[in-house]
Amino acid sequence: MSRVEDKLKQMGLSLPPAPTPGGNYIPAVRTGNLVFLSGVTPRRPDGTPFAGKLGKDLTVDEGYEAARICCLNLLANLKQEIGDLDKVTHIVKLLGMVNADPDFTQPPAVVNGCSDLLVELYGDRGRHARSAVGLATLPGGVAVEIEMIAEVSG
Amino acid sequence: MSRVEDKLKQMGLSLPPAPTPGGNYIPAVRTGNLVFLSGVTPRRPDGTPFAGKLGKDLTVDEGYEAARICCLNLLANLKQEIGDLDKVTHIVKLLGMVNADPDFTQPPAVVNGCSDLLVELYGDRGRHARSAVGLATLPGGVAVEIEMIAEVSG
Amino acid sequence: MSRVEDKLKQMGLSLPPAPTPGGNYIPAVRTGNLVFLSGVTPRRPDGTPFAGKLGKDLTVDEGYEAARICCLNLLANLKQEIGDLDKVTHIVKLLGMVNADPDFTQPPAVVNGCSDLLVELYGDRGRHARSAVGLATLPGGVAVEIEMIAEVSG
Repeated sequence: MSRVEDKLKQMGLSLPPAPTPGGNYIPAVRTGNLVFLSGVTPRRPDGTPFAGKLGKDLTVDEGYEAARICCLNLLANLKQEIGDLDKVTHIVKLLGMVNADPDFTQPPAVVNGCSDLLVELYGDRGRHARSAVGLATLPGGVAVEIEMIAEVSG
Repeated sequence: MSRVEDKLKQMGLSLPPAPTPGGNYIPAVRTGNLVFLSGVTPRRPDGTPFAGKLGKDLTVDEGYEAARICCLNLLANLKQEIGDLDKVTHIVKLLGMVNADPDFTQPPAVVNGCSDLLVELYGDRGRHARSAVGLATLPGGVAVEIEMIAEVSG
Repeated sequence: MSRVEDKLKQMGLSLPPAPTPGGNYIPAVRTGNLVFLSGVTPRRPDGTPFAGKLGKDLTVDEGYEAARICCLNLLANLKQEIGDLDKVTHIVKLLGMVNADPDFTQPPAVVNGCSDLLVELYGDRGRHARSAVGLATLPGGVAVEIEMIAEVSG
């Protein structure tokens, strides 16, 4: 088991099955040492989509939790692509897209749910560039969608 | 004629003239083996902007058609940059941005209009990572804007 | 002093201090010859956030000014990462995200505030690919957020 997955286990977390794409695309494409990961969306523990708009239906804490679930989905897709999560040399970039009411002003506090977990798992290699912004709507009305670029070795 | 353009012809399609940028930017920048393509927007066959909001003014089928037109514009820009569309080794990533009402939940079904055509034209090399999301508004009020990253050789 | 900073000075401009990230992320990550820069937001000369929605609270000229301020913040972050702004071999790509009312149709005219300055400073090396789109909302309700990819040497 990779060190990163071991750390997840110690935190009481585990990788979900890699999510099935909801359209004609694939979860990840590697080019050179970069892996471009498709945007992922969160599900609740009961398997239903984690839907709702920030600033209207959901609290920042709920959005944070949704972003944390997105992180696990990104890592599941990344493992499927590269085989071993310890091959990550750097998390390069996130685009965190929050389903938000036009008056909601805290997309960064939501997307931290993903960023915090990446830094907990990877330490300095997990520190990434990022944009965290508010979208009009997302697939299935989910709370957050996050895409990622990772640098890998081997 | 490239194999990809030949395939387009067999499908009854052809590349439009590369669209003129609507601002101080260029259609594509190549760095190493990656080409980063600017977001493109669709026009209707009569040359007017393909405008309207999904979930309000346009059906999913109309949005799908708009995304397909975006795909042709992306390929026109890509050909202008690399000279020959057969030099593409992989379509890496799309960001599909749909002009959407806050209650619209099907951005992926719209962006499939671009993804389906890429896969028809390039086969496995056309299978890409993607995010498909709902924006508050787009330039000129168009239905869809799509940007792309392609890996090329030579 | 680098040629680019000298040019800024001649224009009566200067680099601000690199902005403090408003979340758990870092301003830039370099991978190979590419630097991925986090989205930045603008402040007014008095230090308060440059807030407001295009098409509702702010004119296109005000949005243009906000985008120009974003450009200076991006360059401040880039200098912090690479040490010398003359090491830039090409500005590759911008994603310009405008806080916009659903009826606003001119995101490109706003994002030109950043693009124009890049081209003034870098000439042909500053000509970049770009998407300029309208978001539902942004961090702190600011007018514009812009992220950038730059190609660098050395």
